[in-house]
Amino acid sequence: MPTPHVLVDPDLLEDNLARTRSALTGLAVRPHAKTHKSLEIARRQLAAGAVGLTVATVAEAEVFAQVCDDLFIAYPLFVDEARAARLRALTGRARVSVGLSGTASVPALARVPGLRVLVEVDPGMGRSGAPAAAAGAIAAAARDAGLTVEGVFAFPGHSYSPTGRAAAAADEARELARAVDSLAAEGIAARVVSGGSTPSAAFADAGVLTEYRPGVYVFGDAQQWELGSIAPEHIALTVTSTVVARFADRIVADAGSKVLGADRPAYASGFGRLLDHPEARIAALSEHHATITGLDVPVGTRLRLVPNHVCSAVNLVDELQVVGGQTWAVDARGCNT
Amino acid sequence: MPTPHVLVDPDLLEDNLARTRSALTGLAVRPHAKTHKSLEIARRQLAAGAVGLTVATVAEAEVFAQVCDDLFIAYPLFVDEARAARLRALTGRARVSVGLSGTASVPALARVPGLRVLVEVDPGMGRSGAPAAAAGAIAAAARDAGLTVEGVFAFPGHSYSPTGRAAAAADEARELARAVDSLAAEGIAARVVSGGSTPSAAFADAGVLTEYRPGVYVFGDAQQWELGSIAPEHIALTVTSTVVARFADRIVADAGSKVLGADRPAYASGFGRLLDHPEARIAALSEHHATITGLDVPVGTRLRLVPNHVCSAVNLVDELQVVGGQTWAVDARGCNT
Repeated sequence: MPTPHVLVDPDLLEDNLARTRSALTGLAVRPHAKTHKSLEIARRQLAAGAVGLTVATVAEAEVFAQVCDDLFIAYPLFVDEARAARLRALTGRARVSVGLSGTASVPALARVPGLRVLVEVDPGMGRSGAPAAAAGAIAAAARDAGLTVEGVFAFPGHSYSPTGRAAAAADEARELARAVDSLAAEGIAARVVSGGSTPSAAFADAGVLTEYRPGVYVFGDAQQWELGSIAPEHIALTVTSTVVARFADRIVADAGSKVLGADRPAYASGFGRLLDHPEARIAALSEHHATITGLDVPVGTRLRLVPNHVCSAVNLVDELQVVGGQTWAVDARGCNT
Repeated sequence: MPTPHVLVDPDLLEDNLARTRSALTGLAVRPHAKTHKSLEIARRQLAAGAVGLTVATVAEAEVFAQVCDDLFIAYPLFVDEARAARLRALTGRARVSVGLSGTASVPALARVPGLRVLVEVDPGMGRSGAPAAAAGAIAAAARDAGLTVEGVFAFPGHSYSPTGRAAAAADEARELARAVDSLAAEGIAARVVSGGSTPSAAFADAGVLTEYRPGVYVFGDAQQWELGSIAPEHIALTVTSTVVARFADRIVADAGSKVLGADRPAYASGFGRLLDHPEARIAALSEHHATITGLDVPVGTRLRLVPNHVCSAVNLVDELQVVGGQTWAVDARGCNT
């Protein structure tokens, strides 16, 4: 295979599925398919005990309905007539839930027979969730419009912090519990209390949550490595790259942001890591150049790079190469709508 | 069209081609096709006076050979037998030059009849170019192996600095002039002296350079806007996005890193800009969420977002929507090898 290419170790992947399933005792697991966008991997997650799949867009749901009849679009969709028609087609094929973080989309969603909703709650991340205290009023508006309210959900994205993983899980449990109470005050029982991010998974509160939605756990990546949530020996996806230039202070490899992605959080040591050279740093990244310090190897050497954010890296390629010779399609690549 | 989608204004694009062609007086223009990856746009660049195209990979060259018979792969390729075979197929269809930043690949390149090389020189960016003083020795090794040495090239990427654009252009001219002298000392005339980045284009030194390779100029993006190198009224590509949630301190739109790209240089004000709301900021970016501050509009409002780095954004979609109703394929999307 010419470099750069994205390579998956299927044994490590299966181990990640099994280990996470057993770590999340007492919780249903509904993995986020945005990470892998692959029907093959979705089938493996379902075989490993997932109760259904999470997706981010209607287009992803349309792809994964091929292998799964229980889909949660964990996103506060804006629903115009065209998207409502797509949702109607989906509810004819699968049990479909969508996120709701306000009442603006309720009338449009109510035109989709059989659609279920979960109210999105802000666990302290400050993104698209509603305040927990507002969850009851949103749920009541949905119920009154004829929608089935399944419960509440949150994404504790502030768990992407080297020191904040446990605190984010605690925030999530507290705000989801408040939201459950807010629904109860409207006479609505939250059958599903869904949380989850990979960094906070080790701290998931099964006393409050009923369901978890990890995404990155399937592969791991450099962010999880540096956060301490996935050890490098569990990383199941790497980008194979070749050294193309060598200088006194650096080498340059042929993988850049167009295969690794450009994600670079403030806590990261660089633009990704080298699986076999933990002392090396990806100090700079252009579209087709990784500038690497702390490692001196000849031009032509192949290296295994670990993307910072694997969800971005997978979405850049049409196929994953698999150790052993198979290829798996990235079926939902680019499914943004 | 459902959102998010990538929208191009063809009139602004044509204006960018013409304005840049006339600004680069005395220089051949060889646009970098990695920015747009589109045969339609390449045809327009050639019609607007480009002497040929620049590409970053052999795979891009294979695509653009459909519309252009003079291609420069501005990259220090590592050439194994498989890549040499692809280069041989290419030199049968087009005049092909490749970059060379050391002697390691010379023997492999020399197995490609008719191949031309340009020595890559570091203009102070510290990426993959050789020191100017070493250019002559590299060129001599290439010549002695039977390759045709066209000249020298540089990419002054350190021009991506709000205060460093002119200095980077001066560095580029100085180091390329030194490299020309270094080749001359080996008895090799540099017929081509190729430079270029969009931020430094306004300062290109036609007394040293013979050729310029701008990429982003075709569309513009938020980086160029914030660097002061392309005014917002010239930006020809935007991502149409819909507001999906609204809170007291922020709104959330449905375009994230999977359509805008995750590039976020230190000098940037955020993860992109809003073309019609210069006061607003994209304060945070997830895969499908742009968290926007400084703007309060209702859920359902469509916004025109400007990606920070347009080369990343284009590489995320299969088609560009065009004002007026056409679509243009991103023919070379994902062509990393």
